[in-house]
Amino acid sequence: MSNAVFILVNPQMGENIGAAARAMVNFSQLSLRLVNPRDGWPNDAATAMSSGAFDQMNEVEIFDTLEEALADIHTAYATTARPRDMVKDVVTPREAAEESVKSQNQRTAFVFGAERTGLENNDAERCHKIITAPTNPDFSSLNLGQGVLMVAYERFIAEQSKSTINTNIDHEPAPMAEFDNLFSRLESGLEEGGFFREISLRPKVTRNIRSMLLRSGITSQEIKTFHGMIKALKSSK
Amino acid sequence: MSNAVFILVNPQMGENIGAAARAMVNFSQLSLRLVNPRDGWPNDAATAMSSGAFDQMNEVEIFDTLEEALADIHTAYATTARPRDMVKDVVTPREAAEESVKSQNQRTAFVFGAERTGLENNDAERCHKIITAPTNPDFSSLNLGQGVLMVAYERFIAEQSKSTINTNIDHEPAPMAEFDNLFSRLESGLEEGGFFREISLRPKVTRNIRSMLLRSGITSQEIKTFHGMIKALKSSK
Repeated sequence: MSNAVFILVNPQMGENIGAAARAMVNFSQLSLRLVNPRDGWPNDAATAMSSGAFDQMNEVEIFDTLEEALADIHTAYATTARPRDMVKDVVTPREAAEESVKSQNQRTAFVFGAERTGLENNDAERCHKIITAPTNPDFSSLNLGQGVLMVAYERFIAEQSKSTINTNIDHEPAPMAEFDNLFSRLESGLEEGGFFREISLRPKVTRNIRSMLLRSGITSQEIKTFHGMIKALKSSK
Repeated sequence: MSNAVFILVNPQMGENIGAAARAMVNFSQLSLRLVNPRDGWPNDAATAMSSGAFDQMNEVEIFDTLEEALADIHTAYATTARPRDMVKDVVTPREAAEESVKSQNQRTAFVFGAERTGLENNDAERCHKIITAPTNPDFSSLNLGQGVLMVAYERFIAEQSKSTINTNIDHEPAPMAEFDNLFSRLESGLEEGGFFREISLRPKVTRNIRSMLLRSGITSQEIKTFHGMIKALKSSK
């Protein structure tokens, strides 16, 4: 049973949600989360396009924000064709599938943006890594259902060959909620200390710091350590 | 330039031909042949669904029979989810892509049947091998565009050398001296703040923090940011 979650952020057309669901179930991916679907939920157009896929799935979960949708996730992959002004590892769907399937007790999320605009920067920034599919550079736009299909397909194949993969990894990332809590604390400490001098640069600076810390796949134990570090630094002078 | 040909036999809906064309061009597969398309050719619904893919392709060729469409092909793969009562090698899309790409001067065809019925036995029979995609056994029906996508995607990846797929991102870890300098500063800040309560654990704790920060492949720019963060935290309370 796959423990991966597919998250669609601000999906617009019900048809695309249905096509994504069908592609997921074709490859035994049964957990779908929708963040703020434009036309509400449930959605008749989605059901019509799904060929019955929703009946095979776990219940579709609805969230207001990506932050909430990621709270119990350990490793999140942002899918985007566009390179971002942020420092994150970029992997192919295949690499993402192969590395994510190694963590049996960890939940992985694959995050997809809205049809036209893709993932917003502040949503991509919440993710650990970026998935960019290798495509024809002159014609690279995939629709949502196709993007989901490619990732679901790779994940399914990786799951099937998982028994031969060494599942022993020595550190596992903390759930995102723990990270977010740490990050809020760090951010307010930085604010108190006058770190954000140029208010207009604050979002970008914050994004870069988040990215840097997320990239390390910080564990629960390390988050505890980090809290201690912040406390200590605040009481030093 | 790919020398593979995608052949759709008796395709029904123009929309599906358009979706197949789009998926092909996404993965630089530019040769499409249609055998006896139900609604004739050209087809407005196909054009509308293609997102302009036909403009990027070689001319679409139309044939009355699969036999004619295969005339100049060296190796043909029949795609079907259903096992056939015939003795042929059955391969996955990935295996087909990997083996077919080795023959530079040989033309390969990937043959897809009609939407509802799939390939007829007598058409599948004309092909050298069968491609069956690994799918969820309880929900295995892929639509035509998705089937084409999977094969085109695998073919594209096989065509590219592994080294060119992974375009590297432009972040380079800082020189170790910069990191060590940052780390000393962090460590003395922590010491001032009473972070290291258990002196005997200090080496291990220090090692863990170092390893967490190093793991992210921290850049020079990020090290500057981190210095600023330490300064700010120290002046907050």
